Amino acid sequence: MRIGIIGLGLIGGSLGRDLCLNPENQVWGISRNPATCDQAIAIKAVHYAAPDISQISKLELAQLDQTDLIFVCTPIAAILPTIAEIKPYLAPHTVITDVGSVKVAIVGEAEQLWDRFIGSHPMAGTAFNGIQAAELELFKGRPCVVTPTDHSNRHALDLVQAVWQSLGAILYQASPPAHDRAVALISHLPVFVSASLIQVCSQEPDRAVAELAKQLASSGFRDTSRVGGGNPQLGRYMAEYNRTALLSGLKQYQLCLEKAIAQIEAEDWQSIESSLTQRQTERPDFLN
Amino acid sequence: MRIGIIGLGLIGGSLGRDLCLNPENQVWGISRNPATCDQAIAIKAVHYAAPDISQISKLELAQLDQTDLIFVCTPIAAILPTIAEIKPYLAPHTVITDVGSVKVAIVGEAEQLWDRFIGSHPMAGTAFNGIQAAELELFKGRPCVVTPTDHSNRHALDLVQAVWQSLGAILYQASPPAHDRAVALISHLPVFVSASLIQVCSQEPDRAVAELAKQLASSGFRDTSRVGGGNPQLGRYMAEYNRTALLSGLKQYQLCLEKAIAQIEAEDWQSIESSLTQRQTERPDFLN
Repeated sequence: MRIGIIGLGLIGGSLGRDLCLNPENQVWGISRNPATCDQAIAIKAVHYAAPDISQISKLELAQLDQTDLIFVCTPIAAILPTIAEIKPYLAPHTVITDVGSVKVAIVGEAEQLWDRFIGSHPMAGTAFNGIQAAELELFKGRPCVVTPTDHSNRHALDLVQAVWQSLGAILYQASPPAHDRAVALISHLPVFVSASLIQVCSQEPDRAVAELAKQLASSGFRDTSRVGGGNPQLGRYMAEYNRTALLSGLKQYQLCLEKAIAQIEAEDWQSIESSLTQRQTERPDFLN
Repeated sequence: MRIGIIGLGLIGGSLGRDLCLNPENQVWGISRNPATCDQAIAIKAVHYAAPDISQISKLELAQLDQTDLIFVCTPIAAILPTIAEIKPYLAPHTVITDVGSVKVAIVGEAEQLWDRFIGSHPMAGTAFNGIQAAELELFKGRPCVVTPTDHSNRHALDLVQAVWQSLGAILYQASPPAHDRAVALISHLPVFVSASLIQVCSQEPDRAVAELAKQLASSGFRDTSRVGGGNPQLGRYMAEYNRTALLSGLKQYQLCLEKAIAQIEAEDWQSIESSLTQRQTERPDFLN
């Protein structure tokens, strides 16, 4: 198969490393940074690379017009502009997918731009970024959601699913809105819940209490605050591109918290204990 | 030194194992469960044990009236009743300390009951409970707060501090209210913040979204929800015995969350990114 990867970071680079292991694949890649292109070739994440699509189109060996599948692995904000930019260079049979962590903001417009577009979201981050963090088998055993719509081309969907499956991903299908609401709950909401915890602890006005809190914080605080202290740009994008689902999750969350506060104010210890018992029972459903 | 330990669970048992390593110490223990007494002797957590103080008082070798220091390692609710119960059997020079995770609800009344009382809070839990989980060096390198007051006996404070120090704990001093506010922020608040996250995810009404959320949840949800899915009785005690400080923390937390929601509603992406950048900067102050 002939495959293109646009954006050679952790996800794009890891995809490429897996795909290049199959001798039947020819993989080209694009990164704005020429040094990243060189590095991607060196680690066998791509066979050919260039800083933009016009230069790829000039590489005869890359055979752009015979490309079967293109992965757009740029940051969310660049996905739609990237599709618009590459569109004039592609043959109509080429399938495009992305790896963005939100889907409503992408899929509708992407389908308008390119009718063989299928949204994907592989859930496979690590703590590291960039081509130097690219790993073999990053997607193996990890969930990957594809988000077809009523307009999706059947062949395009089959191709995208077959490729993710060949990389060992565990495939799920969901509509773009269902996808966005699910990730709002389990991935985007935790960031803001966790960030507010860091904030309240950091804003403690009594200096002795603030100092002691810093000294005593241990694994409970560490774990609960981890995602709130993560990449700020990623958090911003979650809010920006998944605003509706995130806001809805946050408001439901506020209601849950208000209920807990009311129980504590009412000194209803038995209800607090039964609520916490229920949480203890519910949590394992989310741990795979 | 002659030492008593009342309550032979993880903390009491671990204390005893460390203390029994010093051949100059004689350690007696109390557990309501006779099997726990036998087990504590078998693993050398105590030299003598019995199910209650009246039986300890009859063990000539335990020399109750010559005991220098007693650790009350019962659940929080039993600390004050335990001190009232043992009081008639003790010589006036005996120092009592506890290991409870809240201090305002304990220290004032404990001092009234026994003037050589000093509150302690070793921050050294593990995921396990009971005498069978008792470890050597559980307190080594871990924080331990002692909470003297204006009424504290100087000798008693010195003795308690010296013993924790001999076990390798990193000592801090704080007033009971400052202690309770600090642990409310970094230990008790996370439980309710985290439990509400589990609740909102579990209560998702759309079945397809709820199912997908369970399948996609990964390390972000796992870490942020961990303490909310922990021991429900412990969570209840945090609320019950540290109600004022916890409620104050929860209300400050609500304000922080409301601010984040307002930024998302206003689509103020730049402010969201700078807030999250600030959280990223603040968090390492709490990681030791």
